[in-house]
Amino acid sequence: MSNFKIQGRQMKEFYMNLALNEAWKYQFLTYPNPAVGCVILDKNEKILAIKAHEKAGLAHAELNAIAHAFKSLRPEISLPKEANALHEFICKNHQGVFKDSIAFVTLEPCSHQGKTPPCAKLFSELGFKKIFISVKDENKIASGGAEFLKKQGIEVEFDILKEEGKKLLKPFLKWQKGQFKLFKLALSMNGSPFGKIVSNELSRTYAHEIRAVIDLLVVGGETIRKDCPILDARLCKAKAPNLCILSRQNIDNFDKNIPLFKVPNRQIYTQIPSEAKFLMYEGGENFLKIFKDEIDMFLIFQSSSLNDEKNVTIPLNFKPLYRNFLGSDTYGIYEL
Amino acid sequence: MSNFKIQGRQMKEFYMNLALNEAWKYQFLTYPNPAVGCVILDKNEKILAIKAHEKAGLAHAELNAIAHAFKSLRPEISLPKEANALHEFICKNHQGVFKDSIAFVTLEPCSHQGKTPPCAKLFSELGFKKIFISVKDENKIASGGAEFLKKQGIEVEFDILKEEGKKLLKPFLKWQKGQFKLFKLALSMNGSPFGKIVSNELSRTYAHEIRAVIDLLVVGGETIRKDCPILDARLCKAKAPNLCILSRQNIDNFDKNIPLFKVPNRQIYTQIPSEAKFLMYEGGENFLKIFKDEIDMFLIFQSSSLNDEKNVTIPLNFKPLYRNFLGSDTYGIYEL
Repeated sequence: MSNFKIQGRQMKEFYMNLALNEAWKYQFLTYPNPAVGCVILDKNEKILAIKAHEKAGLAHAELNAIAHAFKSLRPEISLPKEANALHEFICKNHQGVFKDSIAFVTLEPCSHQGKTPPCAKLFSELGFKKIFISVKDENKIASGGAEFLKKQGIEVEFDILKEEGKKLLKPFLKWQKGQFKLFKLALSMNGSPFGKIVSNELSRTYAHEIRAVIDLLVVGGETIRKDCPILDARLCKAKAPNLCILSRQNIDNFDKNIPLFKVPNRQIYTQIPSEAKFLMYEGGENFLKIFKDEIDMFLIFQSSSLNDEKNVTIPLNFKPLYRNFLGSDTYGIYEL
Repeated sequence: MSNFKIQGRQMKEFYMNLALNEAWKYQFLTYPNPAVGCVILDKNEKILAIKAHEKAGLAHAELNAIAHAFKSLRPEISLPKEANALHEFICKNHQGVFKDSIAFVTLEPCSHQGKTPPCAKLFSELGFKKIFISVKDENKIASGGAEFLKKQGIEVEFDILKEEGKKLLKPFLKWQKGQFKLFKLALSMNGSPFGKIVSNELSRTYAHEIRAVIDLLVVGGETIRKDCPILDARLCKAKAPNLCILSRQNIDNFDKNIPLFKVPNRQIYTQIPSEAKFLMYEGGENFLKIFKDEIDMFLIFQSSSLNDEKNVTIPLNFKPLYRNFLGSDTYGIYEL
């Protein structure tokens, strides 16, 4: 039995898939960092943790998963929250509990000291035996993690669900090089974008969490005139995003009592500034029709209800990159 | 570390959820048996198998999972296919590999000799240590499995994700007592049921697999006249279902060249016979409008494409019981 060590491709892909799915839950929210997931197994291949990088400045996926695993193995020890302190604390107090452990990471562990210490070093300090990686890190600053691990005598295996790992990285690669444009659309099950509230609170909270990290929210004049929205991030209690209003009508002619104009310290643009790297477009059918060809990805929320409203009727074939559920809503991240 | 044995509620629910999800993949296809899923962990809590009962007459979920686990532990041994032979073979040749193993089962293991030998006895013969169960079996013939296990000194813990386990059993409890009526609907992402082919081949194959086990497929005159369908189970190479045509028009007046009338040995009814226990309704907006209130569950396939067709506009709030993906399609099993 000792030589049945995750030899099956099926089991390797099963664990990597857990890591990938966990990472997708935080897709976009890690901006400007990439979404990354990590699964930790002990030396007997028992699952200890399934975690992701959740937000820039917080622990990387590897550290987050290791901290979670440590908490489950040593519930009596309380851990520091801040990433650097957490890293240091675990290195000092691990008591060998991770000896010969195994990790599945969706992206090659970093080897550089960024805001947080290098994850490759953490695996080596804790005595991990093997690291499975989906995608190699092509980022010059952070790469080299696998080389480092191998030098420390840790086995490294690349390319587990590589195509899936590449999909996960796409937004990061795009906003790193230039602009990444996401279009958000909310539909009922029968394809209607109408009705006061289409998505449920979980879906809207995820959308607000994205609003809290983007550089710019892009909306059309029609949405503003019809919905009189506030376009803030209140559901996650975060700062409202700056706006870009794309309208044929002069923005000076809009009713300044519309709530979005009353958000303090909000900058409002009428052209997209080139320094904005991550933009979210929000709108309905017309806005989608105008901008669909310049959009990188589509985030589509869909409820479980039929109503008696007209549907969107723009022929478009979406290719799903990831889909999941938020309560009774479904959501998907798509490309054309 | 030895007392950290799946004590965390989170991990118990994680494994039970794997079992539940696997079972839902075969929901309806196990008719007249219940859908059941089973996860096997070894004594160190490594996942060995995630399997379900797939079809009446084939191995129960427990035996199927154990066989799969045995194959991964002893790949050199080839196993018999037939369920009774498989059960017997594993009991004779297990070599103690399941000593102190753990199982998660969505339904209390059966204690009776049906078409296949009792699963409770299998767990005890193989030396399992603990069985986690979602839902107690209220079926008088098969129940008593947990009592038997406890008498053999095996730990039993009930009610892991009990509400989810109950949802999984609903179709079984309905068709066991009387009639279970499922309505199948296929929509584009913008809620249109129109277009020659709405769902992809994976979705249509699942629908054909259901057609292959139901007692009766119920359709309306409108579908027959408009689509001239064959309504068979060709995508899974199975026998076409008997039909019930509900139409105001006399069936004798239908064009007998429509392919569905040419299926050999097919019985065609114009009223629902009371002995039919599992019925699937297939149709569009009007058929849904007429029958929605007498339907037990809705199976809704939805593509990832928008088109320029009109949508369904019957206000209905569906409560999802389960949802998953088949290629680029989404599907859900809903109640009203």
